[in-house]
Amino acid sequence: MKTITSRDNAQYKELKHLATSAHALRKAGRTLLDGVHLCETWLQLRGQPEQCIVSDSGLRHPEVVALVAKLEAHHGRVLQLPDALYEPLSQVEHGVGILFLVEMPRPAVPAALAANAVLLDNVQDPGNVGSILRSAAAAGIGEVYCSPGTAFCWSPKVLRAAMGAHFVLEIHENVALAPLLEGAKIATLATSGYAKQKLYDVDLKRPVAWVFGHEGQGVSDELLGLARHQVVIPHLGQVESLNVAACAAVCFFEQVRQSQARAG
Amino acid sequence: MKTITSRDNAQYKELKHLATSAHALRKAGRTLLDGVHLCETWLQLRGQPEQCIVSDSGLRHPEVVALVAKLEAHHGRVLQLPDALYEPLSQVEHGVGILFLVEMPRPAVPAALAANAVLLDNVQDPGNVGSILRSAAAAGIGEVYCSPGTAFCWSPKVLRAAMGAHFVLEIHENVALAPLLEGAKIATLATSGYAKQKLYDVDLKRPVAWVFGHEGQGVSDELLGLARHQVVIPHLGQVESLNVAACAAVCFFEQVRQSQARAG
Repeated sequence: MKTITSRDNAQYKELKHLATSAHALRKAGRTLLDGVHLCETWLQLRGQPEQCIVSDSGLRHPEVVALVAKLEAHHGRVLQLPDALYEPLSQVEHGVGILFLVEMPRPAVPAALAANAVLLDNVQDPGNVGSILRSAAAAGIGEVYCSPGTAFCWSPKVLRAAMGAHFVLEIHENVALAPLLEGAKIATLATSGYAKQKLYDVDLKRPVAWVFGHEGQGVSDELLGLARHQVVIPHLGQVESLNVAACAAVCFFEQVRQSQARAG
Repeated sequence: MKTITSRDNAQYKELKHLATSAHALRKAGRTLLDGVHLCETWLQLRGQPEQCIVSDSGLRHPEVVALVAKLEAHHGRVLQLPDALYEPLSQVEHGVGILFLVEMPRPAVPAALAANAVLLDNVQDPGNVGSILRSAAAAGIGEVYCSPGTAFCWSPKVLRAAMGAHFVLEIHENVALAPLLEGAKIATLATSGYAKQKLYDVDLKRPVAWVFGHEGQGVSDELLGLARHQVVIPHLGQVESLNVAACAAVCFFEQVRQSQARAG
């Protein structure tokens, strides 16, 4: 374990620059994972981080100590910082004091949609995006495509809400969704409160690409027009609509239900 | 429309005290609805507010003007404030400049669970609580019971996330959930990652009380033991669990699906 105690250390200054500028982090193709759960999940699914950073206080937590021991057993790079130096690096309030600096995965965009996928059209709220990623991963969906207006997936808020789902998904950002829908080799479905076909009446025992839209305006008219199916989740109440992340969960798990009914 | 321009006005001081102290608001049995959507939904479902408060800027929005006109047509109490006086009353950033002060509904707790209901055991995050209320209302569930540790339902964050669902639900807060489950006259279901029975294999064509728990720890062991069914949402991915609000949406709409399949 290496220790830095001076704010003027070049490596520390570089880290601080990355941690405090989302732009610098993106440009470097890196992201920071904050907290034991995310770091542990990364280690399990993706392997060593480029750098692990722990605070003095962090090393008083048995889980942090155990994680650091695992890294060091494999010659991982661990950097220990006094709390005062660590604090500006973390965006999590009352965080536990462990960060991984990792390379942001940048998978190649497939030529056409051919496997279960989620397309996010202008979904704004980081909590919603994170929840959708988490539900998608739990439902066994592997690919995510985000329009330029959708919240940045590798931000601390989205990472926290998705609880490690990022590491089992192929996430493509800043993608033009219309050509993807036009060229899709699988069924494409967009949800809309105005659709006639009910979600439960669509055959989901096949690969599907789901399209979800902006929290207020929903899926854009252009993309609605390009999706092969427009489906509605039947409502029983006087309330007009579902939260987009709740809507996505209902869709994904209806697909799981139908797939398992076939298998069972 | 009445106008107040002085910070020293007694009515303004009273309003400001309520708006800036969650404790004072609760003690007065009142809550504040912020923004056009919530106010309009209240007016439609519950009628006149005790007081409508608009800012000078708010009155430049056609939707606010239309809403105020509706109130005044029924002799509603509308108070206009300069932006500088209005601003401390609103907790919404970039709000549109309209608030309703309303009496917080306080329905009597039924003797026993006998209709579709949701029980929230220590659900912490206001966004999750709001999303669950919204999904419940959309699925036609009418009753909500919250344990003392669950986020306060009438806070601005929960109100915003629920988009008016509060006004069609009977919400009971600070309720001991164990006796409710013990005395339930309907099926009680708690979700658990460790359960054997799949959600899709339970008969939901009957009234059900759902129990959802803390974001990290899930439903407490005591309540899990008291629920008649422990059910799991089958997962296909490597990711361990769903967000609690996503989980609730999947459960509620599986009930909707089964009910409609019977009806159809």
